[in-house]
Amino acid sequence: MKVTILGNNSAIPAHGRNPSAQIVEVKDHLLLLDCGEGTQMQFIKYGIKRSKIQHICISHLHGDHYFGLIGLINSLGLLGRTDPLHIYCPEKLPAIIQLQLDACGSMMPYEIIFHTISDEGEYKLIVDTPSYSISCFPVDHRIPTHGFLVREKSSGRKIVPEACREYQIPQSYYYRLKQGEDYLRKDGTLVQNDWVTEVGKPDKVYAYCADTRYTESFAEYILGADMVYHESTYLDAENDLANMRYHSTAKQAAQLAVVAEIKQLLLGHYSSRYKNIEEFETEAKTLFVNTRATFEGMSIEL
Amino acid sequence: MKVTILGNNSAIPAHGRNPSAQIVEVKDHLLLLDCGEGTQMQFIKYGIKRSKIQHICISHLHGDHYFGLIGLINSLGLLGRTDPLHIYCPEKLPAIIQLQLDACGSMMPYEIIFHTISDEGEYKLIVDTPSYSISCFPVDHRIPTHGFLVREKSSGRKIVPEACREYQIPQSYYYRLKQGEDYLRKDGTLVQNDWVTEVGKPDKVYAYCADTRYTESFAEYILGADMVYHESTYLDAENDLANMRYHSTAKQAAQLAVVAEIKQLLLGHYSSRYKNIEEFETEAKTLFVNTRATFEGMSIEL
Repeated sequence: MKVTILGNNSAIPAHGRNPSAQIVEVKDHLLLLDCGEGTQMQFIKYGIKRSKIQHICISHLHGDHYFGLIGLINSLGLLGRTDPLHIYCPEKLPAIIQLQLDACGSMMPYEIIFHTISDEGEYKLIVDTPSYSISCFPVDHRIPTHGFLVREKSSGRKIVPEACREYQIPQSYYYRLKQGEDYLRKDGTLVQNDWVTEVGKPDKVYAYCADTRYTESFAEYILGADMVYHESTYLDAENDLANMRYHSTAKQAAQLAVVAEIKQLLLGHYSSRYKNIEEFETEAKTLFVNTRATFEGMSIEL
Repeated sequence: MKVTILGNNSAIPAHGRNPSAQIVEVKDHLLLLDCGEGTQMQFIKYGIKRSKIQHICISHLHGDHYFGLIGLINSLGLLGRTDPLHIYCPEKLPAIIQLQLDACGSMMPYEIIFHTISDEGEYKLIVDTPSYSISCFPVDHRIPTHGFLVREKSSGRKIVPEACREYQIPQSYYYRLKQGEDYLRKDGTLVQNDWVTEVGKPDKVYAYCADTRYTESFAEYILGADMVYHESTYLDAENDLANMRYHSTAKQAAQLAVVAEIKQLLLGHYSSRYKNIEEFETEAKTLFVNTRATFEGMSIEL
């Protein structure tokens, strides 16, 4: 699993920083988390194939998180996409997109399938495939907003080939062994799963917490995550402002990282008042060492 | 009057070229003609002050001509604009913008005043100030589309100071002389305007023809214009395609320049199939020598 930051500024583009958008690459699929204005240009700039996008998740309807979506949808059509596109989003987004599609007077050559997330706030599984899943969880912002959790599923238990050969288990059965099943030999004897497998790699979990003020209300959903992107619009000196505007500081992001016992913290969604972002990392590291302040174009492997 | 090209690619951004947008600077006012995605970033890149925009004209509702408008509107609000913003646009645009403003749940600190142009197509004066005016005129595209004509008004007749002094005309009357009025002296004698003034500079006229296939239907409106931006999505080899898609070739743009007896032709709105644009200028020049293929960031004085 790999995360690439396409935009990490808040509200307005400034200092060469674009509004929010990031790509999660998981098992050769591309997921787009938020889509601020100019995201499709960022795809070109960083060599990401627009055509490979499977799912788009929109956290909320502040413009810096979705104004680039209609342009991307339109371009995918002009580029001849035929695969359906799944969009997970707030309730009001489909009407906004549809109105603009109607106005241009042309049909998209592919189907857009909207999956709306309740404005009331909900934790639910929105995508589930054999190799990964996506869930959404409510955060605390001025308008209905959700974060997203991407889970790369482990390939299951690890095969011990010598043991399997000893019990004469055919390779065609390895997939079921990985899922934890036992094996019944032709002679009626049962080979217990743990005689021929070992504990495999755990799932990998990435969480994108979108825009939120400090709250521990969603800590349970991101508990123990391998990597978490938590907004840090402000530094600690602007703590009151952050709270008033339903945003967080770098220090608060780090505080949540501690509470949720995550492994690595990414910072972003910087206010335009900060030209340099080094201090965000410094501040967060006083509480949580494994922190990185993201910059545009940055790719991080999980 | 000065025109700056912020974007000149058609349909999708490609080869580092952005979708349509251009700034006309006239008498210290900024007019924005079309506003493709990323226009607000182009403002920053080329050092144009967003806050100085007076009027925005949107030619039609294909996304490459207006998807950047909502982002610009939103940013102007966040930057604290209080001056009203006038937008001249197709009938369906106000609802599209309003829906997105409603979704974000915040009020703009300034008034947005929409002036819609009939989808039936109309030639009319849409802005009139003492120093410049803007008119719209219908062109021939797949959906309702208008071009715009910006007229920088001359300062009127030219004062001949010696003659004015001879007739003892006070300087406070010069403004009326420039408008062509005569002067009645206290002794009752009339000083005819042309005794004390000469012919002044003519108006300067710039026309933006938006997206259109070849038609001479609007030639009368741009007749004799100092500078005209006419789309050239394709080269002559794709003449049939251009016609089918309601676009023009570089050669057709030049043909119209000849018919409308304009002084200078600008080309743009290139299809993404062309990485290099030199040939557009070469092709047009075979018919109309005073042609320039625009590039992004180019500023041209009239």
